[in-house]
Amino acid sequence: MTRVPSPILLVTSLCADEQSAWREALALAMPGETIVTAEDGVDRGLVEVAIIANPPPGSLRDLPALDWIHSLWAGVDKILQDDTLPDTPIVRLVDPALAQAMAEGVAAAVLHLHRDLHVYAAQQSRKEWRQHPVRPVAGRRVGVLGLGEMGRASAALLATLGFDVQGWSRSRREVAKVRAFAGPEGFAPALEGVEILVNLLPLTPETRGVLRRETFERLAPGAHVVNFGRGAHLVEADLIEALNTGRLGHAMLDVFEQEPLPKDHRLWSHPGVTILPHVAAPTSRATAAAIVAEAIAAFRRTGRPPPAIDRHRGY
Amino acid sequence: MTRVPSPILLVTSLCADEQSAWREALALAMPGETIVTAEDGVDRGLVEVAIIANPPPGSLRDLPALDWIHSLWAGVDKILQDDTLPDTPIVRLVDPALAQAMAEGVAAAVLHLHRDLHVYAAQQSRKEWRQHPVRPVAGRRVGVLGLGEMGRASAALLATLGFDVQGWSRSRREVAKVRAFAGPEGFAPALEGVEILVNLLPLTPETRGVLRRETFERLAPGAHVVNFGRGAHLVEADLIEALNTGRLGHAMLDVFEQEPLPKDHRLWSHPGVTILPHVAAPTSRATAAAIVAEAIAAFRRTGRPPPAIDRHRGY
Repeated sequence: MTRVPSPILLVTSLCADEQSAWREALALAMPGETIVTAEDGVDRGLVEVAIIANPPPGSLRDLPALDWIHSLWAGVDKILQDDTLPDTPIVRLVDPALAQAMAEGVAAAVLHLHRDLHVYAAQQSRKEWRQHPVRPVAGRRVGVLGLGEMGRASAALLATLGFDVQGWSRSRREVAKVRAFAGPEGFAPALEGVEILVNLLPLTPETRGVLRRETFERLAPGAHVVNFGRGAHLVEADLIEALNTGRLGHAMLDVFEQEPLPKDHRLWSHPGVTILPHVAAPTSRATAAAIVAEAIAAFRRTGRPPPAIDRHRGY
Repeated sequence: MTRVPSPILLVTSLCADEQSAWREALALAMPGETIVTAEDGVDRGLVEVAIIANPPPGSLRDLPALDWIHSLWAGVDKILQDDTLPDTPIVRLVDPALAQAMAEGVAAAVLHLHRDLHVYAAQQSRKEWRQHPVRPVAGRRVGVLGLGEMGRASAALLATLGFDVQGWSRSRREVAKVRAFAGPEGFAPALEGVEILVNLLPLTPETRGVLRRETFERLAPGAHVVNFGRGAHLVEADLIEALNTGRLGHAMLDVFEQEPLPKDHRLWSHPGVTILPHVAAPTSRATAAAIVAEAIAAFRRTGRPPPAIDRHRGY
């Protein structure tokens, strides 16, 4: 007699349409499993695996059989702030397609700033024809903060484009054609001479506020900053001051402490800021669902979940 | 007895500062040569080699000893319109650094359009937070018109970025990972399914007006057009109509029939058009001067100029 697999609980704070789309994608990717939500009136005592995307605080309590949790997002900073989170392993999404999408988004942002497209957009609004020198990529130093899957893919693509790339990560990581720095003592050298700084760090207590005045002051004068990490990485007042004094040239921001960015927020209309609505590396439902399905299938076979995050470290 | 080399005549329509900068760069690159301009009162009968950059019409007459002409520009469409042009070989600039700069400019433009940065810029001006799906590069077909040095470098870089690239040229050219079409019968197939079309053709009687309604109608609906060739490649009325009806999505234009683009030109304020002030691939004085110096040194040794353009073909 085949044992009926326990239902898999999907918990999100997404709007109904989006949650349904995820449920469908997951069901399609694992036809042998039953995907349920809290609204289905499931017996919570049977749930061994939960799939989450920004679950509302407290929503993972009262799951006595819960073995592990798979996040549909790569970043798990929000869920770790939930004090009621059960002490089970949390697996975050590690999707090569996501890393590739991020690398392409980073390449688009860096080439945009490198070729002064933000300057020409401003000139167009004034009908101003003025040429600025094109710098060779080889002489343009780009810094990448964070050398996880996304950071490594991004740094490697920038190096392929010919930029002079250096990167920083908490623990040492090697990337071909990229000067890699690590640890607290490697942070200042990683910023030296950087003209375009790209933040792809996970949000942890140590990285919160990493894009602040002291960091900006180590970059080349007039450097540009790309924040594709989390809103809380950025000290907004420091950014605005650095843009207003000319210490920084331009900022391209994809993430904000409050999303959507409120209509009355001063960043919307700052001439030194390009706002993107959190689109640098959108999760692809199809590839993410396939990765989660694969992890659950392996768990059914072996009884072991994939490697979990380190809660203390935060990723 | 060493024969004193004949003076080399520099003829441009550049402003005085720019012409001086070129003269200095050229003098630096060939210290054994004497670079003169018409203002120096040179004996025109001695001039065997002229270096030109948009020379004023008629300025190359009365040079009885002229052997050949080196253009500092890659495009020679303007000078070929001068009826008084002597019947000597014309060599155009073929600079690998220029091809590389063009490829980077093309990559910046294509990634910009691919990642909807033009859409997000418009949204920012309205303080609108709205996400658009990110398409995988592999499913995005980019067409490159022209597979000379610049076109080949650009198509190759786009293919490296993962785009689905196809290209077209007058005579057949092969580029790794790029579907290459050629000749009049290859033109329609080269446009099929193209979502981002990049024009890098030389301007010739046959390519004039190539970016016109019939071309746009063969592209994928809502396709974007990048014109980094020449202004006269584009039929502006057709472009505006195609943008207004939604047949085309967006146009990024770097070149215009009249440059600088006049203040009162309607293209400046069209929401579907991004204007760049002819900066896609600026000639680098240092690398261009070195290439011209090398050509002249070879001529001094062998008495033969480098391969000349085909005046009938136009490049």
